[in-house]
Amino acid sequence: MEENELAQKIREIISSKNKTELDEFLDHSEPIDFAQQVAELEDDEIMDLLALLDENQLASLMEESEDKERIRIAHMLDNKRLLVAFGYMQKDDIVDMLGDFPIGRRKEIVNLMKSDDRRIITTLLNYPEDSAAGIMTTQYIALNENLSVHDGLDKIRDIGPRTEVIETIYVINDKRELTGVCDLRDLLNASRDNRIKDIMDDHVISVLPETDQEVVARLVSRYDLESIPVVTKNNQIFGIITVDDVIDVIVEEYDEDMLQMAGVSKEESIDSSLKDSVRMRLPWLFINLATAFLASFTVKIFEGTISKVVALSAVMTIVSGMGGNAGTQTMSILVRELAQNKVDLKESIRAFFKEIGLGVVDGAATGLLTGVIVAMVYGNPFLGVIVFLAMIGNLVVAGVFGFLVPVILDKLHADPAVSSSIFVTTATDVLGFFIFLGLASIFIKYLI
Amino acid sequence: MEENELAQKIREIISSKNKTELDEFLDHSEPIDFAQQVAELEDDEIMDLLALLDENQLASLMEESEDKERIRIAHMLDNKRLLVAFGYMQKDDIVDMLGDFPIGRRKEIVNLMKSDDRRIITTLLNYPEDSAAGIMTTQYIALNENLSVHDGLDKIRDIGPRTEVIETIYVINDKRELTGVCDLRDLLNASRDNRIKDIMDDHVISVLPETDQEVVARLVSRYDLESIPVVTKNNQIFGIITVDDVIDVIVEEYDEDMLQMAGVSKEESIDSSLKDSVRMRLPWLFINLATAFLASFTVKIFEGTISKVVALSAVMTIVSGMGGNAGTQTMSILVRELAQNKVDLKESIRAFFKEIGLGVVDGAATGLLTGVIVAMVYGNPFLGVIVFLAMIGNLVVAGVFGFLVPVILDKLHADPAVSSSIFVTTATDVLGFFIFLGLASIFIKYLI
Repeated sequence: MEENELAQKIREIISSKNKTELDEFLDHSEPIDFAQQVAELEDDEIMDLLALLDENQLASLMEESEDKERIRIAHMLDNKRLLVAFGYMQKDDIVDMLGDFPIGRRKEIVNLMKSDDRRIITTLLNYPEDSAAGIMTTQYIALNENLSVHDGLDKIRDIGPRTEVIETIYVINDKRELTGVCDLRDLLNASRDNRIKDIMDDHVISVLPETDQEVVARLVSRYDLESIPVVTKNNQIFGIITVDDVIDVIVEEYDEDMLQMAGVSKEESIDSSLKDSVRMRLPWLFINLATAFLASFTVKIFEGTISKVVALSAVMTIVSGMGGNAGTQTMSILVRELAQNKVDLKESIRAFFKEIGLGVVDGAATGLLTGVIVAMVYGNPFLGVIVFLAMIGNLVVAGVFGFLVPVILDKLHADPAVSSSIFVTTATDVLGFFIFLGLASIFIKYLI
Repeated sequence: MEENELAQKIREIISSKNKTELDEFLDHSEPIDFAQQVAELEDDEIMDLLALLDENQLASLMEESEDKERIRIAHMLDNKRLLVAFGYMQKDDIVDMLGDFPIGRRKEIVNLMKSDDRRIITTLLNYPEDSAAGIMTTQYIALNENLSVHDGLDKIRDIGPRTEVIETIYVINDKRELTGVCDLRDLLNASRDNRIKDIMDDHVISVLPETDQEVVARLVSRYDLESIPVVTKNNQIFGIITVDDVIDVIVEEYDEDMLQMAGVSKEESIDSSLKDSVRMRLPWLFINLATAFLASFTVKIFEGTISKVVALSAVMTIVSGMGGNAGTQTMSILVRELAQNKVDLKESIRAFFKEIGLGVVDGAATGLLTGVIVAMVYGNPFLGVIVFLAMIGNLVVAGVFGFLVPVILDKLHADPAVSSSIFVTTATDVLGFFIFLGLASIFIKYLI
């Protein structure tokens, strides 16, 4: 069904208040597609829809909705109905939602929970949203290592439907310490009276509750895991993180990097209000303004020279711009290699000198063409020579800063993906103007 | 074990040629960690190592190694040993490796394969590496819909160990057409004499062999799938793509976007040779050079004005630079929303006018500060007013182009993440200079 038909159909069902048709519709559509369409509805339409939904349909809608939409829906529900729906939801989703609630309502709802749930939810609320505990689920299978394979399989059959993962089975001892992991396949193939201890793999990759979600994502992706257990510092199993949540983390971190690099907050979207957009973007523009002034003052120093040869003002922008482009190239490669932890010292010294060589070669190639064109346009071969030399100089600057800035930021534990760009382009702007206009001042008598 | 210890240990084992110790070591380390260490070894060390490895250890090493390293290892092996190792490898990995072989050797090896394997491998070699068929595995479970649950479970127990996924079971009819999917949990819970047909879900999300891997990744991520089936246009099942390969695709596409945006090829790495780096980066620099000349010629038009008020040459760089920054902000948000297919027409018209409003507000804020500073530094309030107006103008340009360029590129089916940047900054450079210097020419009598 096309998106428009989908939206049309949902509106029809809502206005006809036809519960049977709604159930039929939900059985044949993907929860996320439904949630996305619901997000487009007006408040009064959603009110009518909520009246038609069962609690498990409501739970699925909230789980698949974006943060903003979940809150909108929750606002239309009383605490009692919300609690019943929570019964069908993953704990991490409940915690995410509660985290976005006003504190008053959050406390109200937590207090209404059964004591078991309240204990788990209260504990989880203490961890940041982007920590391992913030994205883990508490619905997993952990079998005691002393169980027989036969009893283990019975238990899986029993608990399986309520867990997120059944292919990976975690194994614990009597103290609930994580002692191993085994694959459902191995269980299915093992002799039924073996103990689980005998067939498990005792090498388990796990994370702590406070581990950053980016680290979790890197481990799951590196070791091709289906899930990763979260253990307390006493090695007791606390929850698991499944691969589908890891994909969400990777996509989220990717978006964040892309946006932060451009000086945009991840909170902003195409439908943010003008006021919010100003608040979120203006600070970055002011930071850039400071660096723009730096470059501008460099030019100001050479105003005497420019007033003698006004052509310099047009040509200088080429030199600074090309430095920025070349610096961004070098920087991007370094940022990627740093993200993959691939930079070792010996290799990097060689690579650093290569970037300098590259600045010379690329600078000479682009500088030659620029020099020839400039010499012809302005009828001044010396101006061409100066452009040629300045381009080489600035592309070497680009290589040096494009290389060093991400490395240094990484050593200082700042995210090189986010903040390298501003330092690199400041360097290529300021030094690009300085080298070109400096050379022009020195050889001014050949230019006039 | 720390990385250095790991490398040390591997070198020790190799020089002592101790097979038992090697086996012990491999049993307790992750294949990918091992492969990464092996990549650092010298050729003669690898030769000695290969002599010690079993064929399945060799297969695992090749599967976990990067493309370049696989080829290095394959160079040291004769065809016979390579074929035995292929027996332990996933078909998609074999195809990837063969794709990187010189044609002669590729044909030699394919001809030596058993006819079944040869047929599959030859078919797979016809698909691009980044298509669904290029990343799928042919090792999956597909059960006939008419089997009983009891027989189905027997079959899973039987085939399970040789497949990549057992949690998701695909269901086919007698013509091998994909008719449904079911979860192992449902099978485990169903009554043993039910037919699979009765418990399966007949709504299956699938892709075609030629589907782009990015589309595959988006589907798996959106619908939280553990795997996705690849079907021929007759709806016959051809293979499956597992979530761990999808994560690799997402990370790869992410890297590609980041690098291409900066004009760097994804093939380049920190240890590319100087020659390769020049070859891969210089074309982008020449493209940028063309746009730099455009901006430069805009300035040239106003040389007469600049020669009268040389301060303009220093101040103009602020206006153009700030436009570039603001344009990049708008563009980044659009690129993200387009990637998530979130832009609808009604919303986007509103958003477009918001960007224009944002240009006015942010332009006025940064322009005011800049204007005041410039007026004081140069002792010329009119210059301050012109900067103020030009900044507003260029930030509106930034909003308009930052919005329209990605949207138009997307409509033209070009990747907005990759090519938007150059058009946006060209616009803000050229028009930034034009607006500022143009205003200065018009009001030149107040500036002198």
